[in-house]
Parts: sequence; C-alpha cells; structure tokens
Amino acid sequence: MSHDAETDARWMRHALALAESSLYITSPNPRVGCVIVRGDAVLGQGATQQAGGPHAEVVALRDAHAKGHDIAGSTVYVTLEPCSHHGRTPPCVDALIEARPERVVIALCDPNPLVGGQGVARLREAGIAVTLGACADEALALNAGFVSRMTRGLPWVWLKSGVSLDGHSALPGGDSKWITGPLARADGHQWRARSCVVLTGIGTVRADNPLLTVRDVPTPRQPARAVVDTRFEIDENARLFDGGKVWVFVCQNDPAKAERLAARNVEVVVMPSMSSGIDLPSVMRWLAAHEINEVHVEAGARLSGALLETGCVDELLVYMAPMLLGQGLGMARMPAAASLEAAERFVFIDAMPVGTDMRLRLRHPGHWAALTQALDQAVQHRLAG
Amino acid sequence: MSHDAETDARWMRHALALAESSLYITSPNPRVGCVIVRGDAVLGQGATQQAGGPHAEVVALRDAHAKGHDIAGSTVYVTLEPCSHHGRTPPCVDALIEARPERVVIALCDPNPLVGGQGVARLREAGIAVTLGACADEALALNAGFVSRMTRGLPWVWLKSGVSLDGHSALPGGDSKWITGPLARADGHQWRARSCVVLTGIGTVRADNPLLTVRDVPTPRQPARAVVDTRFEIDENARLFDGGKVWVFVCQNDPAKAERLAARNVEVVVMPSMSSGIDLPSVMRWLAAHEINEVHVEAGARLSGALLETGCVDELLVYMAPMLLGQGLGMARMPAAASLEAAERFVFIDAMPVGTDMRLRLRHPGHWAALTQALDQAVQHRLAG
Repeated sequence: MSHDAETDARWMRHALALAESSLYITSPNPRVGCVIVRGDAVLGQGATQQAGGPHAEVVALRDAHAKGHDIAGSTVYVTLEPCSHHGRTPPCVDALIEARPERVVIALCDPNPLVGGQGVARLREAGIAVTLGACADEALALNAGFVSRMTRGLPWVWLKSGVSLDGHSALPGGDSKWITGPLARADGHQWRARSCVVLTGIGTVRADNPLLTVRDVPTPRQPARAVVDTRFEIDENARLFDGGKVWVFVCQNDPAKAERLAARNVEVVVMPSMSSGIDLPSVMRWLAAHEINEVHVEAGARLSGALLETGCVDELLVYMAPMLLGQGLGMARMPAAASLEAAERFVFIDAMPVGTDMRLRLRHPGHWAALTQALDQAVQHRLAG
Repeated sequence: MSHDAETDARWMRHALALAESSLYITSPNPRVGCVIVRGDAVLGQGATQQAGGPHAEVVALRDAHAKGHDIAGSTVYVTLEPCSHHGRTPPCVDALIEARPERVVIALCDPNPLVGGQGVARLREAGIAVTLGACADEALALNAGFVSRMTRGLPWVWLKSGVSLDGHSALPGGDSKWITGPLARADGHQWRARSCVVLTGIGTVRADNPLLTVRDVPTPRQPARAVVDTRFEIDENARLFDGGKVWVFVCQNDPAKAERLAARNVEVVVMPSMSSGIDLPSVMRWLAAHEINEVHVEAGARLSGALLETGCVDELLVYMAPMLLGQGLGMARMPAAASLEAAERFVFIDAMPVGTDMRLRLRHPGHWAALTQALDQAVQHRLAG
C-alpha cells in the first residue's frame, strides 16, 4: 500500500467531507469524519453523530462490518485523533486496536487535555503505524471553535456584517432591510446554523427586535442566542424570548426581572465591567466554559466595534452589496486607528459571489497562529512520547 | 472542418489572448487579435500594432506567408470585424479576400460607423462564409472603450479606489500612504497603463502632488493625464506638468496662465458648469471626441462622488485592504441614497486576491447593456444586409 502524502491528502479530504456532513449537530463535540480504505476501495466510512452518539471511527467500523469487510491491514483516515478516555462513549482507540488496521492517518491531534496524546501512543503501542498532520489546516478550519476552546479557553468568534461597497451597514436613518440579497441572507443563516450561539447587542434588539433563529436553511437544531445588555434594559416581550435558550449578559442585575425571564429559559449572567462597558473577553471566556465552540455575532456598529477593539473577533464574515450608499451607519464604531501601520490587519481567506453580493471572509492572523502553534506542540508531544 | 461552437470559442480565445498582448499600444484603435487555422494547425497569427501600423489580420497573413503556408480553405478567427475602408492602412478585408480562407469567424461587429458592416458584406460577396459572435462578451470587455466611444460618444470610465474593509480611503487626517500593499499599487499601474488618460481632481493634486504616470510596471507609452480644476487653481509647478500631455478642465479660464502652461504641453479646456460644478458628462464627451477610449480615474472622495452622481462611472476597480480603520475619509462623497431601493447598483464581475489585498471589479449594468445592445443591432444589420 502506498504511503505517499498525495494519496493521504486525497483520502483525508474525503474524511473531511464526511465531517462536514455533521456541521450542525456535533457541538459541543468536534465534527469528525473517518474513512477506512484498502487500496482504492472504501471499506467503511462515517461521521460523528450528535453528542452522546457514536464517534466517527465507530460509525465507520460498524459500516465496514455491516458490509462484511475485515479491516485488518487497511488504512484508517480520521480527521481528529481518536479518543482514549471514557466520555459519553467508550474510547474509539480500543475499537480501532481491536479491528487491527495497518495504519491510522490523523489530521489533527486532539487538543483536549483529557485525551492528552494517549490516542496516538496507544495505537503505536499496539503496533499500528500512525501518520500525523495530513490536511491539518482544513481540519482546523472545520473545528477552529473546538480547538480554540480547548487551547485558549475561548470560543472561535466570527462577526457577520452586511455592508455596501463603501462600508455602510444601513442608511443614515437606520434602514438596512435589505442591503444584501436573499441568497446572502440564506448563506448567513447557514453560518448561524453551524454556530453554538448567535450573539447580538441590546441596540439591535431595540432597533429590529430580531428572532436570531435559523429559518432560511434547514437545521436539525437551533443554536442558543445571547444578548449583551450592560444595563439590563431588554424588553421582557422581546421576540428573542420565544422558548429557546437565551443568555443575557449584564453588568447590573435586576433579580425580579431575571427570575421572571428564568421561567422562559432565559439565563441572566452578571459580568464584570470595564471602563468602556461590559468586559467582553470575560463574556467569551464564560461562553467557552459553557461548552460554546463557535460564536456567530450579528450586531450593530457599537457592539461590533467593541468586540473588535477588545480583540474578541477571530474572523470577519462580510456580505458586500454592489452599491454605494454615500452616507450611512458604519459596520463597526471604533476610534480611528492611530496610524495606518497601527491599524489591525486581518487576512483574506475567501471571496465568493453569493447571489448579487460578494462574500468576503477574513481571519485574524495572530489568533489563528495561536491555534496552529498549540496543535504543533501537540504533534511534537506525540512524536516525543 | 468542424464548425462547432466549442471549437470556434477555443480558437477565438486564442485570438483574444493575442489581442491582449496589444493592450497598451493600439489606442485610439481597438486591440485586435487574429489566428489562421487549418484543422489543429496554426498557419499564422498576429495582433494589432500601434496606430498606423498593420492590423491583426495583416500581421497574421504575413506570418502565414513567411512560414510558407497557403491559407486557402483555412478558417480565420479575428476578434473584430475586418475593416473595409482606407484609414491609416489599406482595408484588411481586401487582403483576406485575396488570401481566400474558407471561413472567417468574428467576435464583434465593428461599431465604427465608417466600417458600417461592409467588412462582413464584402467577405460574403466574395463567397467566404462568415460566423458572428464567438466570445462576444470577452471581446467587448477588451475593447469596451472603443465600442463605447463609437456607439455612445463616451469613453469607458473606471474609478480606482484603495479602501479599508469599512470603506475608508484615508485616515481622518488624510493619511492614505499606504492602505493597500505594493502588489495592489503595481496592479493599479497596469490599469493606468492600458487607459488612454489618467484623470484626477484638483483636491488630489493639492494634497498629494502626484505624477500619475505609469512607473511600477513596464509600458511602451504613457497615457495622457487630466485634471478637473473648476476654478483653475492648479499650481503651475505641479509635478504633473513634467512634459507629457496634460489636459486641465476648467470653468474659469486665465488666458495668461493657460498660455504659460501651453508651452509645457498642457492644454487648458474650458467646460460648461452645472449647479454642482463642472459639467462632467461634457468632459467625458470631449475626451471621446479626442479619441480617448478608456479613462482611469484616481481621485478623492469629492470628484469620485461627483462622477458617480452624474452617471459618468462605468466600472469600479476597488483594492480592499484587510483592515478596519474605524473612522476616515470615504471613497466617494455623495448625498445619502433616498432609500435602499433607490441606491444605484453595480454588478460584481471579479474578485481576485492581489498580494494581501482583494481586488473587486464592478460594472454598471445599464452602461454595459447599452454597449451590448448596440452590438446586437450591428449583428442584426449584418444578417439583414
């Protein structure tokens, strides 16, 4: 069997496509795909199911078994290091060792400290060859939130904006329905659907009274929703309070109001304040501590600017409409950069037409490097182990 | 010989690539490419040379002849209808008829009223089959300026901007060096190089004292330069006045100043004024009347906004830097759109990473449609003729 890197990358991309099929269902677990191969033949394949359900490796092993295949001597491609601890399911590494593949190819080492490199070590102890790092970047992009939570104690946060070419998110009077077209809105709902929580600010709740649910695309589950509302001013009849889980982050509590809202699945969380308002990094740490991997922010200029200023934004998801508004509300209210050199730079990672609009994706290079460095250290640890 | 559309499109793209090799040299003539084919063999090929030099068809025929090929029975692919009138060179259609190809495939009918469909008619009279319209859109994109001048009496105008993601072209204090990176600047110089004139406003001359020449890429000729300067305030020592052709468009003349500048290859042109300032559509008509096909605008927010407001902009060429400035100068000063429905919409035609920046190109759909409709009418005229 060929061990060349190109073949490994091809099969790993197949496993990543399987993992993507679980995009909306696995949280707080990572999305994982697995394919078991002998030569050019797929013996079995699978993806992680919802939390508590079987992991990708077990689904793939069962698939191969159901088709009558013995996987001894095969190669297993899995997008994340197999788990070696008893969580909600028995350790995948035991099932793999029992099935005796010749080799296991892994895209990402598991950054979860509970796993701690035991997956790779136990496979090797059992005489199974292990290859690390195939398609690591793509695998990280699919699970940046999980890796971020495990390595930084923070979720992976993207800020969604719909703006005109000249950077206005609404007309001066506030009218923003609709700058971007229906396909951009549907695409935005796909990003809501993959997130663990949709976050907005009290200004947007007051102006638009949004639901913030996923409606324009099918989804097996709704993400939670959250509002940053420093002075706890939110209307108790906001449409947001429709029965799904909602967090309201405040600096000033009102216990009676909080108790009334609690009956409607709303949790009021008191956060420390900073000179400029609520301590947003603390909000993010709180979300990570509550198993939130990915945060989808849809907010006005004020909260968007505050998140950017406090370094809370990892990615920008911008739907740009092909028009100039001349004047209007900005996408993020911030003090002017002290100089062009001082302005914080993102990195373009994608530009794609969505209907008549252009979708631009940008990533914070330093935040991404923190994840890749943590993963590189995990690889070094496995190699030394 | 196969006459299928796919084969025609493939060879026409080859002819278009030849035409692109003349991007910087043919004005005021169109860029034209020609390839002569028998089966899979190229017998000869060529592109239009500088004005007064041989046209593409003649270059291709000479190439075939130099290689000892008889082109009788071949197919000639040419991106623009062969000329049938004596201009600076003898009519190409005579040379083609003499060489007796079996078929001539033409991307665009010549919109020049002097040609008037005689090219197609004379080929047909001579018993040569003619196919019209292969890759017509690509061929139009390459010569939108020439077609615009012939059919609308206007040049094709693009507005170049370098902006941050939030639509600022400079910091509040005016610092714009450099929002975009060196590769974006070099790409911008390529667009300068292909244009017939680089146009700016008095505000930019005062603030930056630019040369507006092509420097970052090699070019066989410098485009002319032009300044919109309603009150004729330009400093006679502006760096712009370096000896190359410069037009200064004013509403108030100062004959003594104009005469001093005339000695330095500067022509002062008095234009009518509108309530909001100089009559910009008149400036554009004047440029077209002076054989200007393409106008590259690099201007501040004021002139950019005025050109947009008066419908003078056909394309937007936007280099977007991956950063947010928070506050700054806009890319185009305009009154706010009355409503989102009333805002003028462009159409994205391209998004391409250029270094760390993203280059976005947008086209005015109505202006483009005016060109395609004129060409469609020309095709109908040829078919009826």
